[in-house]
Amino acid sequence: MRNIRLIVAYDGTDLAGYQKQPADKGITVQGALEKALSIICAEPIQIYGASRTDAGVHARFQVCAFQTSGSIPVENIPRATIAHLPKDIVVTEAIEIPLDWKPRHNIFGKEYIYSIYNREIADPMGQRYHWHVKKSLDVEAMRQAGKALEGTHDFSTLKGANTTPVDPVKTIYAIGIKENAGRIDISVVGDGFLYHMVRNIAGLLVDIGLGRKSVAQIPELLVAKDRKRIGKTAPAQGLVLEEIFFTTDRLHAVIERIKEE
Amino acid sequence: MRNIRLIVAYDGTDLAGYQKQPADKGITVQGALEKALSIICAEPIQIYGASRTDAGVHARFQVCAFQTSGSIPVENIPRATIAHLPKDIVVTEAIEIPLDWKPRHNIFGKEYIYSIYNREIADPMGQRYHWHVKKSLDVEAMRQAGKALEGTHDFSTLKGANTTPVDPVKTIYAIGIKENAGRIDISVVGDGFLYHMVRNIAGLLVDIGLGRKSVAQIPELLVAKDRKRIGKTAPAQGLVLEEIFFTTDRLHAVIERIKEE
Repeated sequence: MRNIRLIVAYDGTDLAGYQKQPADKGITVQGALEKALSIICAEPIQIYGASRTDAGVHARFQVCAFQTSGSIPVENIPRATIAHLPKDIVVTEAIEIPLDWKPRHNIFGKEYIYSIYNREIADPMGQRYHWHVKKSLDVEAMRQAGKALEGTHDFSTLKGANTTPVDPVKTIYAIGIKENAGRIDISVVGDGFLYHMVRNIAGLLVDIGLGRKSVAQIPELLVAKDRKRIGKTAPAQGLVLEEIFFTTDRLHAVIERIKEE
Repeated sequence: MRNIRLIVAYDGTDLAGYQKQPADKGITVQGALEKALSIICAEPIQIYGASRTDAGVHARFQVCAFQTSGSIPVENIPRATIAHLPKDIVVTEAIEIPLDWKPRHNIFGKEYIYSIYNREIADPMGQRYHWHVKKSLDVEAMRQAGKALEGTHDFSTLKGANTTPVDPVKTIYAIGIKENAGRIDISVVGDGFLYHMVRNIAGLLVDIGLGRKSVAQIPELLVAKDRKRIGKTAPAQGLVLEEIFFTTDRLHAVIERIKEE
């Protein structure tokens, strides 16, 4: 028996999210991968993912693991799966790892990037990958708001509506914002995230960028632990699971990069 | 009567190209724009474009002009057309220009960018906008090949198969290549282009990057004036009409930028 770790990228636009669902709900990343891997390993395969992404959310670097007694050389897996996966899902890397390695227990954090296009007139070539916000945003205020969210907090105010997180206390290591030609990319690195948390951070930052809320309100909003105090969850298509960190070195390198932006 | 110049951007993936065609051939840029403008100007509108792009080709900056006796303020046109255009076509700018201004007679050149993704495993988030070339490309050889194509030449070797250009002599001012994380962007600036010429340049550069042809062969290939001497036309989805130059200042600025890349 071998334990194999995959790095997986996908365009979530036409997918029903990461987690397997009944076939009539659409194609899921987990469902498609298990089907493809079961064919190439010639046995039923069950995979475990590091992060459940929602319908419409993208990933450049999702991590999954599965065990197999099949004989396929691990380095052949990325190529071998291509023929059995929809073209919006690819396995970019496969390596063998110790049998007790589990994706949810061996990561030091994750980076998400939420992208906004901030011009009155849409960019037709980017609409699958950003949220189009027409009114002009105060990016400097958004940057300050990002800084105010960094640190260890009870993030219940930023949880998914009608969800009850097991542990709402998370640490955000860094929030950085890059701006270029109307495109605003919000990078968020943390040790873990509540359901909809990154999309709620993006929504809150946009409300602050529009002047609907102020940076000064953030401590009070967090203390309130009340999802109803913030606005709508930002739409799925702007969100990319950018990286999952297996080493603290890589985590710190990305935090440094964001702090320098 | 007013003459109005539009700048138009589109994602060509689901479009049947720029030029109007019978409705059963799919949505065209010209057809969709004429329909939208006829509604907002309340009279039948005919538009003239600077560049006919093929089915699947994108544009960040296409230029069109039309005349109208309608009363819509010119600055309202980008917003007013949104409701009447498919979401993959937008008017980003509209200005009034002298009545005798025609898009095909008042431009100093165009820039196209052809994008390639050069990794064995696909990038699922970019497939609408690049050509996926799996084998590793020698980018330095491609860069030299680009330089060898610059200048004024009879480009019949790089014309569309089975086409007869009126004037096959064109000037390429600059070809530049940027490379980042597997993505190779070929910028081509010239005074005009034959049908399929940029896609044939991209195809030839890829053949050179793969070692199928050499930079040293370029002079002889051009002199041959024979389309059969080169390989397949690169696929449409990698091509973007990036800019059309109305001033020599802007043309020279872009040439300088490319030469410094």
